[in-house]
Amino acid sequence: MNTLLIKNVSLEGKITDILVEGNKIARIGSGIAADAGKTLQCNGHLAAVVPFYNTHTHTAMTLLRGYADDLALFTWLNEHIWPAEAKMDAADIYAGTRLGILEMIKSGCCFFNEMYWYSAEAVRAAGEMGVRADIGLVHLALPGSSTARSIDKIRADALELAKDLPAGVRIALAPHAIYTVCESSLRDVTAVAEELKMPLHIHCSETLREVEDCRREHNNMTPVEYLDSVGLIKEGTLLAHCVHLTDHDRKIIAKRKAVISHCPVSNMKLCSGTFDLQAALGAGCRVTIGTDGASSNNNLSMMEEMKFAALAAKLKSGDPTAGKDEDVFRCATVNGASYAGVNAGIAEGCDADILLVELDHCRMVGDYNLIANLVYSADSSVVHSLICNGRVIMENHRVPGEEEIISEARRCCDKFRRS
Amino acid sequence: MNTLLIKNVSLEGKITDILVEGNKIARIGSGIAADAGKTLQCNGHLAAVVPFYNTHTHTAMTLLRGYADDLALFTWLNEHIWPAEAKMDAADIYAGTRLGILEMIKSGCCFFNEMYWYSAEAVRAAGEMGVRADIGLVHLALPGSSTARSIDKIRADALELAKDLPAGVRIALAPHAIYTVCESSLRDVTAVAEELKMPLHIHCSETLREVEDCRREHNNMTPVEYLDSVGLIKEGTLLAHCVHLTDHDRKIIAKRKAVISHCPVSNMKLCSGTFDLQAALGAGCRVTIGTDGASSNNNLSMMEEMKFAALAAKLKSGDPTAGKDEDVFRCATVNGASYAGVNAGIAEGCDADILLVELDHCRMVGDYNLIANLVYSADSSVVHSLICNGRVIMENHRVPGEEEIISEARRCCDKFRRS
Repeated sequence: MNTLLIKNVSLEGKITDILVEGNKIARIGSGIAADAGKTLQCNGHLAAVVPFYNTHTHTAMTLLRGYADDLALFTWLNEHIWPAEAKMDAADIYAGTRLGILEMIKSGCCFFNEMYWYSAEAVRAAGEMGVRADIGLVHLALPGSSTARSIDKIRADALELAKDLPAGVRIALAPHAIYTVCESSLRDVTAVAEELKMPLHIHCSETLREVEDCRREHNNMTPVEYLDSVGLIKEGTLLAHCVHLTDHDRKIIAKRKAVISHCPVSNMKLCSGTFDLQAALGAGCRVTIGTDGASSNNNLSMMEEMKFAALAAKLKSGDPTAGKDEDVFRCATVNGASYAGVNAGIAEGCDADILLVELDHCRMVGDYNLIANLVYSADSSVVHSLICNGRVIMENHRVPGEEEIISEARRCCDKFRRS
Repeated sequence: MNTLLIKNVSLEGKITDILVEGNKIARIGSGIAADAGKTLQCNGHLAAVVPFYNTHTHTAMTLLRGYADDLALFTWLNEHIWPAEAKMDAADIYAGTRLGILEMIKSGCCFFNEMYWYSAEAVRAAGEMGVRADIGLVHLALPGSSTARSIDKIRADALELAKDLPAGVRIALAPHAIYTVCESSLRDVTAVAEELKMPLHIHCSETLREVEDCRREHNNMTPVEYLDSVGLIKEGTLLAHCVHLTDHDRKIIAKRKAVISHCPVSNMKLCSGTFDLQAALGAGCRVTIGTDGASSNNNLSMMEEMKFAALAAKLKSGDPTAGKDEDVFRCATVNGASYAGVNAGIAEGCDADILLVELDHCRMVGDYNLIANLVYSADSSVVHSLICNGRVIMENHRVPGEEEIISEARRCCDKFRRS
């Protein structure tokens, strides 16, 4: 069995050792003298915390980082993003996903919830790089279009993708949104998810237009009410964005134990509106955090996303006590882990996902409050090492093969470059 | 004369060499074969851009980073920040300023406009670490209080501080705000600034309460109108925050060639409101960017501040084309440099302030738009080297003495720690 000993690490302000056996934290205590397969010596300079779980992204869009910014939504999509995406092939997706995973690892994130194309390439990239991932099989089915797949095809595609999955990788079903998937297809996808015990992942209430169109087309129901009527909102369903929720929407989400992925940077950059974090937490909703894709962010940093989440909550409420650092940190870590089916925590018996951050770093002094420093001050330069599922996937700021990942991604960018 | 040769650096997409002689960029071109005192070999992997100029901060407050967050303004100041500040001595200010300068250098910033206590310590720290700085002599003079200094004392203090200044350091006069400095003192400080040709630096229109109080006390004038009536608003006067401006305020600021320091993170964290970047740029105001102090931010990263500035502008206007990356980058770089009296630019004859950023970095790919990547994607991990005033103050991610600066600052934090 794979064993890992983390020596003299700071945990909740005390120096201790952590022994990982297989993919679990087996023991925590001073002076553990195990004969581990690998030892990380922290010398009291590194703190152990739960890593970040990114619950909504489109990873390969890192290839389009900086490709088109500061544009109106329609111009941005029609004239830039969609034409570029149309050129993407499987090799691009593989390279772009590896680039995005590299970026996430280097900013302390061990899981991503993916919704993009060529899912088999994303499965492969996640498996090779050792991160956890839910790879969502995207489903588009406009009413009357030829893109709707039969329930048998949906099931067959999901089962095919779910063959021989790497450790930590799950398959999800990802109907894109209510405005791109017709009702019968939403029901089919939901039925297959139920049958195969796969999570569901959908964009929901991202823009006011989506809400208004939904009310007009579906008997004055909000997107949440409509999706609930279809049966899609249930325990573990991931609803990305949720910018425009009513009190009743929040009650439904809380009651069903569905999960919100709050994406504050994307919402602010695209002028979608501001998610009401305090209202969602107050209603008992399970709130997690996502970066969305690099085209609308333009990075995949969960650390930066936490700061935007905290500050957006203050701005939305006009109350500086809203969006507290510990609440936002919980959303980005253990709440995300709970969505991902991970028993996260730096405690014996927990799954061995461990982030080691530098304490002797200018961003981490004053050193009164580690969580405040991580939410409000830190950036990826404090991330020292990352353990995911018991494996060290980044050590001392290095991810194996990073130069090759970057140069391969740069090669892929050439085909999107405009003269 | 000090000479520096930067070889094979990427400049606006082309690989070239840059020769620095003394504190000026002397030559730019391919294959410069000078016998320079120092050579930085970039191998095409680093890009040269103008560094960041932080136009409003309280640097030594880095010692109070994470000390008290997510509190209402009055609780935060009265119960936490002011009692802690009361314990600060000159040694703390020196250590805290060095910590803050370290952080700024490591995130690509070569200038800070300071408003804090024990100014001689800040002058010393800036000089030792080789950054540019305007050190503002803080002036408090509540009506009827004993803190008002005579005009002779203001002049004498400023002249004393201005003795034997290190290269790149200037002395500014910093009346704190209209609600902490009485009108006669504002006039005295303005007169001394005029006489000694020193810049002025003041908080202005940060909160709605400040505006309302001002209107009530000063014949319905806004803070900008009131300060203009006192004569304080003139070319180069730095007005920090400017969250609540009227069209008339913007006209005054533009006409007088005063300078706005926009501090989006602090404004959002303290719920002060949202600065209208588009309106200020549209009115022809000189807009620069500041981080404010680490207590209300909680870092001094101009890169992060740019992203917040861009996104806050979109949110404020509801227009995704507002807060364009190039506009925000200009505010954070050349506009700030112009305030600081620096002729910034990577061009022959310009002052030799040069930031070298990594191109083969996961945050910098896709590589279509360097400015978009710096504003929206990068963090301090892309900052490779920094040249300020012709001197290399950070090379290959290292600032001389950084371990000692951090450990000294941590020692200072002990006295503020609550049991």
